[in-house]
Order: sequence, then structure tokens, then C-alpha cells
Amino acid sequence: MTHHLHLLRWPSLSNLISISHSQKKNYCFKSSQMVNHYNTSTTSSSGGSKPTLLFRQFFEKDSSTYTYLLADVGHPDRPALLVDPVDKTVDRDLALVKDLGLKLIYAINTHVHADHVTGTGLLKGKTPGVKSIISKASNSKADCFVEHGDTINFGNLFLEVRSTPGHTLGCVTYVTGDGPNLPQPRMAFTGDALLIRGCGRTDFQVPFNYDIPPARILSIQAVVFKDFKFTRWIFTLPKDTLVYPAHDYKGFTVSTVGEEMLYNPRLTKDEEGFKNIMQNLNLPYPKMIDIAVPANMVCGLQDVTEKASVVAS
Amino acid sequence: MTHHLHLLRWPSLSNLISISHSQKKNYCFKSSQMVNHYNTSTTSSSGGSKPTLLFRQFFEKDSSTYTYLLADVGHPDRPALLVDPVDKTVDRDLALVKDLGLKLIYAINTHVHADHVTGTGLLKGKTPGVKSIISKASNSKADCFVEHGDTINFGNLFLEVRSTPGHTLGCVTYVTGDGPNLPQPRMAFTGDALLIRGCGRTDFQVPFNYDIPPARILSIQAVVFKDFKFTRWIFTLPKDTLVYPAHDYKGFTVSTVGEEMLYNPRLTKDEEGFKNIMQNLNLPYPKMIDIAVPANMVCGLQDVTEKASVVAS
Repeated sequence: MTHHLHLLRWPSLSNLISISHSQKKNYCFKSSQMVNHYNTSTTSSSGGSKPTLLFRQFFEKDSSTYTYLLADVGHPDRPALLVDPVDKTVDRDLALVKDLGLKLIYAINTHVHADHVTGTGLLKGKTPGVKSIISKASNSKADCFVEHGDTINFGNLFLEVRSTPGHTLGCVTYVTGDGPNLPQPRMAFTGDALLIRGCGRTDFQVPFNYDIPPARILSIQAVVFKDFKFTRWIFTLPKDTLVYPAHDYKGFTVSTVGEEMLYNPRLTKDEEGFKNIMQNLNLPYPKMIDIAVPANMVCGLQDVTEKASVVAS
Repeated sequence: MTHHLHLLRWPSLSNLISISHSQKKNYCFKSSQMVNHYNTSTTSSSGGSKPTLLFRQFFEKDSSTYTYLLADVGHPDRPALLVDPVDKTVDRDLALVKDLGLKLIYAINTHVHADHVTGTGLLKGKTPGVKSIISKASNSKADCFVEHGDTINFGNLFLEVRSTPGHTLGCVTYVTGDGPNLPQPRMAFTGDALLIRGCGRTDFQVPFNYDIPPARILSIQAVVFKDFKFTRWIFTLPKDTLVYPAHDYKGFTVSTVGEEMLYNPRLTKDEEGFKNIMQNLNLPYPKMIDIAVPANMVCGLQDVTEKASVVAS
């Protein structure tokens, strides 16, 4: 299946039925010529068309996680997707999907989370037809895999996929596209790559996903920073782009690219300053990591999620 | 001081200096011909002008309170106000006000809260010139008092004040106006009068504010419901009006008038059904009420807030 950036027709669900639920990598969303979009201006390409995006932000208190609901309410099917759903709040999310008359088609993760179990498996179990999506680089299981430059279509709207490694090498940011019926300013769902006035920790998750010794993680992070992979893919978005992270621990709900370029205390530092901060955070061992990562590595497989819940209880 | 609905020029701060900080009622914001606005359509009267409202939602975890920041960033002074600030998060709020280059002028409460101490007193202490606002019917202290039909101007934008009693008799809802540079859909800051799929409890606060025996509270609530004071003032807004409550305990961040008209399990009931629900909630005695209400009854007086903090610690 190939959905090009400007191929805005909704792919019928029947086209998705053939997707395997196995570990086979399904590269559902192929990239097109997106390079020019990294420096796109704030000028809407919609030509005055009315945005049809329904958007909701949810909060899960125990892990301070934000989940996002996006739907195209201008499309007859009202197709919807959830970004970073949490297992504990799946019923809440599905109740609202029902109230709003939406058709949930995708459960998407920005990365393999270490602090909570994804709701993807439960969503798939409770809502037949929902497909799970995660990055190819996350090295985990899902129905569909995306790479930098891909697009995820829902109705006549779409998200762009941008690689934003650092917290994990598989982290991606999903950005609302710049096209007809899409909102201005744009919205970036940054996961843990860019938090409001912060960024995700960089010291624990790589060994679970990649064949890299733990001792090398910080040096990898330094390379990541040196390459400005965070900033290249997020900070080159228009400054008024809304930043919606996967977490906030102080009660902020949104920021902008422009704000974070000015005030983010980590990502405004040079390489040495950034390394000094990240190496001296002295954070505790994540209490959920041993449950969350194995469960999330097979995101979408309900039986594993259930086992993880038993361990946690 | 009289600010009429369509008098959109910013009142200079020098005009506010004469306002007494005593208990004297200062009716700063007088009503004008607002009746027609209760049934205003969703059609914007802005004639295509670009909204200049900067908006942020904040969350305080302990009391699950939402605070709202609104500012007119199209005005040279970038005047801002906070709705329902919390004492614990005042420094967070002020840091963002500074980062965004805003000038905080008002700290506004929807009602005398019983579950947290307002941040109003701290804000006034830390930011000279900030004025506190609450409803006249709340019977508490503040710099300025508002009544149903008043408007609160900030820059070229304004909020309308609507009486929405029930949780307390002094509860008001603040609604973004329908005028040039104001956003569509409109936004209603409902306090505890209308929560997402709920409403504030009705069984405890009246005795603190009014000379009414506790036994009469539920009958008052029934009258309130019978008169559709909730619904008259909130449910007659355009259905796409965004509902921003003072609290949410399930992680919802926003709803709409149309959604609550369909799915609110309390306010969609008839009088008897509503009374049955509210009389059988079996809620515990609010843990913060003995600290919060006395402090909030003098909202804006820092010394009392400090004493309350000592009691709480």
C-alpha cells in the first residue's frame, strides 16, 4: 500500500484486510517528496478551505500521559485515530469515539513507551478493524510500520511522519499535513522527543530495542544532538506549530515550536551543555519499564498486555 | 467604570488604580444589551478578521483543576488574564506569562472554590497591578465584582459573564464574546456549573456564602434545575461552543455544548431524575473545604492564603 503525500483519497478498509498481524514488517505508508516540507512556511496551502479536523487531548494521571484523538469529521466515514493510547483509559477513549460518531481506524504510537502500557492491544480487541502503527525503527510488532517521510491518511486528512530519535532510536513525531482542510497552525505530536521545556530521558531504552551496549547510549545521544536530529525535524517546522507531547509533569498542555526554540532548557544548549544535563539527571530506574517495554514491544497483541497487567497488579 | 459590550478599547490601567482593595463592592463591569446574545448563532460577527486570542489550558493534579490563560496578542500591551488560578501553580503560570511576553491584568474566579486555594492572592502579591474578579453573588472579597450580563475587556477582546448558579449560588460562566478578533467557535469557562459529563456537587457550599440553612440546599438546587438556570445560560450557546470546565477527573480536557446537551448524564435528566442523582451521590466531606473556602472567600488577600497554607501543611 502506498499513500503519497497528495493522494488524499481515503484508502478503503477493504484494502487493509490483507495486512498481516504477524511480525512481518508491513510498510503501509510509503514516503514521497517531502523534503521541501521541512521548511514550509506558515502560509496555508488550503486556499481558505475550512479545516475538518476534530481534535481532543486526553490525560492519564498515573503516568502523566497525553493521548490524542484526531478525526476527519468532513468525511462521511468520520475516520479517527488515537496517538499514544494508554491501557487504563481505553474505555474512556472509546466512549468518546462512540459519542462523537467516529470510526476508529488506527492506534498509533510515537515510540515504545517505558512508563505505561500502550492501549493499542485493548483497542484492537474491542474495536475490530483498528490497525496498530509504529515506526519501523522501533523494532517492535504492529500491523503497519512507518518511516520518516511517510504519510498516514485518515479521511481527507493526513499526518506526516518525521524521525526524531534520541529518547529511543525509534521515536517519531507525527505532524498534521499542510494541505486542504488541514488546520493552521500545524500540530506536532512529539512523543517524548520534545517535551514542553524538556525532552525524554536518554539513558535506558536502547538496550531493549537495539544491539547496542548500554555504555554507548549516551554517546549515541550526543551524536543525536550533534546531528540536530531533534531540532532538524521539529525546530524547522513553522514557529507557530503547536507542540503536543506524550507527557507533561507540570500541567502544561501545549507549547509551540517557537517557544521551545527560545526556552527549552535542554535543546537550546550546545552539545557539551546538553550532554552535561542528560548525564547528570540522576533519574530513578523507571518503575514501569520492566512491564511496559516487553508489552509495548508487541504493541497490539492483547494477550501480552493482559499478562503485563497481571504482573503489575 | 463602565465597559459596554461593544466598547472594545482597552481601559487604561490608570483607570483601575482608584479601585479599593477593601470589601466595598466594586461593580467594575456593567452590563449592556446582551439579551440577544444568548441565542446568538454560530456565525461569526468578525467579518473574517483574524482571532488574536492566545489561549492555554493548565492542569493541577492534586485537585484536578484546570486554569486558563487568555491574552490578546494583537494588542500592543498583550494583556492577559487567568481564570481559576491555583495557589500551588502560580509560579508555573507566571513563568509562562513572562515567556510569552504577556501583561497579566486580571485573576478571575468562576466561584468560591472548596477543593483548592485560589492563586489570586499570590498572583496579586507577585505581580503588582493584577486585579481580582469574582461574582457579586459569591459574597466574597475581590477588587472587582461582576454580574450576569457584564463584560470583562482585555485588549480588544472580551469575556461575557453569565450567571450559572447551582454548585454555588455565586457561580458564573465566562464566555468569549462574539465580535471582531474573537475566536469561533466560542469558548465557555464553566467552572463547576457544567463539568464534562457531569456538574459540581450541590450539597455543601451555600452555608458558607449565604444565610440559608443547609437543609434547604437541595431544594434550592431543585429550583435551580427547574428554572434551567444551568441550561438556560450554557445550553443556549451555539452547540459548537467549547466547554472548558474548572475540573476533570477522568482526563478529558474539553467538550462542547452540543455534546453535553446530548450526553451529560445529569443535566439531560428531568427535575426528579436530577434530584435523585444529586441526593444520592454519597460524596465524602471535601477534604480541603475548611481551608479552601475561608481563604477563597477573601480571594486576593495574600495573608489569609498564607495562613491557610500553614494549616494545610
